[in-house]
Amino acid sequence: MSTTITAAYYRGDKTFEVKEIEAQPPAAGEVQIEVAFCGICGTDLHAYLGHMDGRVGFDRILGHEMSGTISAVGEGVEGWSEGDRVVVRPLDPGEDNPATRRGHAHISHNLKFLGLDSQGAMQQLWNVPAFTLHRIPENVSLRDAALIEPLAVACHDVRLSGLQPGEDVLVIGGGPIGMLVAMVAKAAGGKVTISEINETRLALAEKLGFETMNPLKVDPVAEIMKKTEDKGADVIFEVSGVQPAVDLMTDVGATRARIVMVAIHAKKPEVDLFRFFWRELKLIGARVYEPEDYEKAIASIAAGEIDADAMITDIRPLENISEAFEELGSNPNSMKSLLKIGSN
Amino acid sequence: MSTTITAAYYRGDKTFEVKEIEAQPPAAGEVQIEVAFCGICGTDLHAYLGHMDGRVGFDRILGHEMSGTISAVGEGVEGWSEGDRVVVRPLDPGEDNPATRRGHAHISHNLKFLGLDSQGAMQQLWNVPAFTLHRIPENVSLRDAALIEPLAVACHDVRLSGLQPGEDVLVIGGGPIGMLVAMVAKAAGGKVTISEINETRLALAEKLGFETMNPLKVDPVAEIMKKTEDKGADVIFEVSGVQPAVDLMTDVGATRARIVMVAIHAKKPEVDLFRFFWRELKLIGARVYEPEDYEKAIASIAAGEIDADAMITDIRPLENISEAFEELGSNPNSMKSLLKIGSN
Repeated sequence: MSTTITAAYYRGDKTFEVKEIEAQPPAAGEVQIEVAFCGICGTDLHAYLGHMDGRVGFDRILGHEMSGTISAVGEGVEGWSEGDRVVVRPLDPGEDNPATRRGHAHISHNLKFLGLDSQGAMQQLWNVPAFTLHRIPENVSLRDAALIEPLAVACHDVRLSGLQPGEDVLVIGGGPIGMLVAMVAKAAGGKVTISEINETRLALAEKLGFETMNPLKVDPVAEIMKKTEDKGADVIFEVSGVQPAVDLMTDVGATRARIVMVAIHAKKPEVDLFRFFWRELKLIGARVYEPEDYEKAIASIAAGEIDADAMITDIRPLENISEAFEELGSNPNSMKSLLKIGSN
Repeated sequence: MSTTITAAYYRGDKTFEVKEIEAQPPAAGEVQIEVAFCGICGTDLHAYLGHMDGRVGFDRILGHEMSGTISAVGEGVEGWSEGDRVVVRPLDPGEDNPATRRGHAHISHNLKFLGLDSQGAMQQLWNVPAFTLHRIPENVSLRDAALIEPLAVACHDVRLSGLQPGEDVLVIGGGPIGMLVAMVAKAAGGKVTISEINETRLALAEKLGFETMNPLKVDPVAEIMKKTEDKGADVIFEVSGVQPAVDLMTDVGATRARIVMVAIHAKKPEVDLFRFFWRELKLIGARVYEPEDYEKAIASIAAGEIDADAMITDIRPLENISEAFEELGSNPNSMKSLLKIGSN
């Protein structure tokens, strides 16, 4: 018996080929998932734009922000059955190395990221190691569950910040991850301000109940000092990746403020290390997530702490993947775009 | 009755005037200390070179790394008596402000540093607020006690790093503070390597039992990776203030390494923020000390954990202050220079 499925291959230079392929059964230790939805990550967009060709190659099925239902269980897999609704934590730590020995498997030196370093979820049936699975609660839809992966990033960022209820929080950058960080920080009791230069995103942030500022229109340092009676922000999330944000993050920190580095700075920016010394600031690098962050993300969605309707700005069928990526790359009003892959 | 004492005034442009002045009695809440020894801090050297004229002015008695004996007790002071041997924690937090309200009085927004923002210890009798005092144990000489202030800096740095026994430590910069940080880290169980480019300082570090490397002669990243079996350093102290050290500090860190920013970077260096994200590194700003760091420094000296003989490279009488500063500014072999101020 053979099964034919639809899969989308990145072929380089903003090009996808959507084609029918033969599905493979899950190997030992794996499960096969009928993918329901798959979000498009900023990293997927980078790949689409040709910035990661050396890593992903030209025969790659992208996708990792997914939800789905188990359709087959490979040999030796226990605790999972056909029909289970799941999301995948797309990290394979690979061989033993200094990072895994320190308990930091999520940032293993040999980390394989599913959907970038191996085939991903932008296909109808996806085989993944069973150790990557998390269960979706009954009251969470498969559509909303596609937000769990990026939400787990936000949960990791907020957890590493050590945010305490009542603390003043500044999120620099109101894109999808910044917005989720703001939601998680607010649910944790933070008094959150979002700094963003795109007016559509600012409007969305305000609609979601956040205080906002546009650093092109107001002096962002004066604004935060006014809000905090000259104390400064207790926790700052840098989610923008630009030099002015790096200047802002040190200028607005209270004594011993924690600055969480979420953004990817491809170029080394200039950083005010004197201010780190002077105010005893802390900088905390935060990358992907650990299992507990997935559990926290799932619980947050199940508890209704995250406004999924506001986050998901469009859904297109897998066949329209090229249009979806094109739109996401050109439309600053897009927040989170999903591909609908399965029929369920 | 009046008492005449000798005091050294900074008059600008590498010039001191040593003269006789009339001693003042301690005000209410103050004690008067007969100063025994006073070390020359890197900051004092900056002032001498004219870099801090705007802050210190031209009528300033410098000095804060001191030891002495109480000679008079002002009104309302309890718990201190004439003859008590003391050191001064030279921080006056000033008026209530957001930093003091957070419990960060040592980095108060209104901090007054005794000996820079007010008259210091390079005079025979020094009046200071009683709340700045710490007692010197009997088995610690007044000479060695002059090391307590810089040693407290090192204790603060190591405490904020969260160093655990057995961890791999890299100290970048083997000047007086770097050397004291290395000693404290070693006493706390760290496996310490010192990176330094001055061969005399490297020789001293080796004599003190530290592993060393000269980053101009070996590849410092390869060296640390070899020592740590590709793990990298767990804790890194940046005590040099130069761009190559800022590059090194991120390149040699293990996953979740803690980098303590001890150095003063007057210019914003370029910092590899991607590496902070990728390895989940932490940067921790550390400035001066809190009371518990003074107590720890005093206990370390009393326990013989610090090689004071190796640290103190010369002692001159107060009258020779100009010669002492000139020598310290020009001789890279100097580690810690003391002025002998009292007769005891």
